Amino acid sequence: MFDLLHTAPSTKARRGRLTTPHGVVDTPVFMSVGTQGSVKAVDPRELRELGTQIILGNTYHLHIRPGMDIIRAAGGLHNFINWPLPILTDSGGFQVFSLATIRKIKAHGVEFRSHLDGSLLFLGPKEAMQIQRELGSDIAMVFDDCPPHTSTPREFRAAVERTMRWAAECREQPRAPGQMVFGIVQGGIDPHLREECAKSLVALKFDGYAIGGVSVGEPEPEMFRAVEITEPHLPADQPRYAMGLGTPAQMVELVARGIDMFDCVLPTRVARNGTAFTRKGSISIKAGAYKSDFRPIEEDCDCFACRHFTRAYLRHLLNVGEILGLRMLSVHNTRMFVRTMEQARAAIENGTFAEFRRDFVANYVPTQKVLLARAAAADR
Amino acid sequence: MFDLLHTAPSTKARRGRLTTPHGVVDTPVFMSVGTQGSVKAVDPRELRELGTQIILGNTYHLHIRPGMDIIRAAGGLHNFINWPLPILTDSGGFQVFSLATIRKIKAHGVEFRSHLDGSLLFLGPKEAMQIQRELGSDIAMVFDDCPPHTSTPREFRAAVERTMRWAAECREQPRAPGQMVFGIVQGGIDPHLREECAKSLVALKFDGYAIGGVSVGEPEPEMFRAVEITEPHLPADQPRYAMGLGTPAQMVELVARGIDMFDCVLPTRVARNGTAFTRKGSISIKAGAYKSDFRPIEEDCDCFACRHFTRAYLRHLLNVGEILGLRMLSVHNTRMFVRTMEQARAAIENGTFAEFRRDFVANYVPTQKVLLARAAAADR
Repeated sequence: MFDLLHTAPSTKARRGRLTTPHGVVDTPVFMSVGTQGSVKAVDPRELRELGTQIILGNTYHLHIRPGMDIIRAAGGLHNFINWPLPILTDSGGFQVFSLATIRKIKAHGVEFRSHLDGSLLFLGPKEAMQIQRELGSDIAMVFDDCPPHTSTPREFRAAVERTMRWAAECREQPRAPGQMVFGIVQGGIDPHLREECAKSLVALKFDGYAIGGVSVGEPEPEMFRAVEITEPHLPADQPRYAMGLGTPAQMVELVARGIDMFDCVLPTRVARNGTAFTRKGSISIKAGAYKSDFRPIEEDCDCFACRHFTRAYLRHLLNVGEILGLRMLSVHNTRMFVRTMEQARAAIENGTFAEFRRDFVANYVPTQKVLLARAAAADR
Repeated sequence: MFDLLHTAPSTKARRGRLTTPHGVVDTPVFMSVGTQGSVKAVDPRELRELGTQIILGNTYHLHIRPGMDIIRAAGGLHNFINWPLPILTDSGGFQVFSLATIRKIKAHGVEFRSHLDGSLLFLGPKEAMQIQRELGSDIAMVFDDCPPHTSTPREFRAAVERTMRWAAECREQPRAPGQMVFGIVQGGIDPHLREECAKSLVALKFDGYAIGGVSVGEPEPEMFRAVEITEPHLPADQPRYAMGLGTPAQMVELVARGIDMFDCVLPTRVARNGTAFTRKGSISIKAGAYKSDFRPIEEDCDCFACRHFTRAYLRHLLNVGEILGLRMLSVHNTRMFVRTMEQARAAIENGTFAEFRRDFVANYVPTQKVLLARAAAADR
């Protein structure tokens, strides 16, 4: 299901192709986040026009609203939301541990109260896999225990042990036709824990492996370290997915560290605050500097927003609260993330990835605002 | 500039064609409201796909934000917002009298405080026409005095006298190349006042005539009466525009009373509350009845929303606060208004307008919710 097409000299970057029931995904890939069955403010036509290959849905959120009765009656998530291309579903583990009020962690899952109405719910490996089977996603994720990055060594160990046990339970559950299941490696920044967790999951023979416990508010060096100590223990011939990451420069750095798949709420989240991503970093389109700037957000961008609207107009729309403003920034930002991965793929194929990475990271100046938004994005 | 192509037997309905610098407008026509330079939540491509021929902009709002320096630097409103088809601009009279805090009504305009930041501004015939010239709209409206429908006879008379005097001033101002100017008839439901105002404006030879002082919170019978007592005094060979109206059934009734042009915020405004217009009246898509309803909003609708999404999915989006929900209802509702006018035009051409009107109004059951929203829309 995963073909490794090219590797890059002098880095760990990989060019691959993942075949799913709903089509092919070229990697490295940025996956847009559609937590509640919609990539925020963007419609499916716009997503396809900007080159989106695969989107995310979320078990926890979709299970609560609209509920599985409705999605089952619709014939699965693809039908319900009218998205014919691949979908990856997160298991809900992250959300149970970050959004919900946990009542009790039990042997086979977590009893928690919904963040919405406080109703008592239970989610564990069996339930998460059943929901994902009914959602009919192309890639399902195991139900893991994702602790805060500030946890104690004892807490990290307990989370890894639970994650490994739950992964084995997930592995035994039935799947939707053709559905792949990815394991999730936890373990903080402890190399032994990460290795132990990775090896235990690899022994279970999943279809791909994710690095979890990143994008949970940790400083950037810890995030890179978590990836660096995990990646060597993952099989070369299967896809690797860094969950919840990152900025464009972080994604390029993670491609160089052997990661194939990314998802992040940043492009649409910061759009709603008027922030646009460019090749040189992010800019606040609301700034007075753009009030008579009749250039597109980014001169050489091919997105719908850049082909049709100026910074001055988008600034006006954002300042008066017109939805078209945040819509167009969401389109542009998503295109910027998707395009960065297109450029990375081309560079790997051409054997120029090392130069691409060097130039990209040198030109890209991350703003504090976006880094803070990334930290806050842990409530996704 | 206006060609009267067909008239309907047994009603006053007319099929016309208005030629403007940015293209032809087939009448009767529904014009989408883009007060601040954007039809709320809908993009220009979507507007064109759903058959929008002309949109509105607003002098008062655009003058305050982004301000004329920026729109002038952009080369006018069409360029600024990237809308290549016709634009009609309202003069700001209605907004000054409904939104702003009036400080003093003077001989040549109104001194008022901005509803946004309280800054002191002045708008009169000369200023309103200059702004509209710089906006470069295809149709400019005169600066009128639009009193509340609860005004006294003395207040209505004063408003009409001021409106006539200001109309004469507007008539003398320079225009953008090819720009048309429409007069606005005031006078409440007093036949003598309406006649006097209409005749005075017609003597000034405007390019078209609007009926103002409607959609200001008055009961529906008063609205129809204001139109019925005004229309006979307007030239048959020029376009007539009922400002701020109405529901689909009201528009059909007004076409039957000889009106050619309409604008209303209803389609996009009620969309943001989850209300969809259909041929049978409006429905609240958030209602539990639609939770497993996998039909489109309206079975025979050709809009983007109805071609792609179900009621169940749109209900979910609205309930979880996803922007795509209100976007798609805005698209559908606008299409429903535009299509009603397409159907009216075809019926006039085919000589079947009387039947079309009878069937349309008989099938259309207005909801109290929408009628209240129309009343509230007086703050447009």
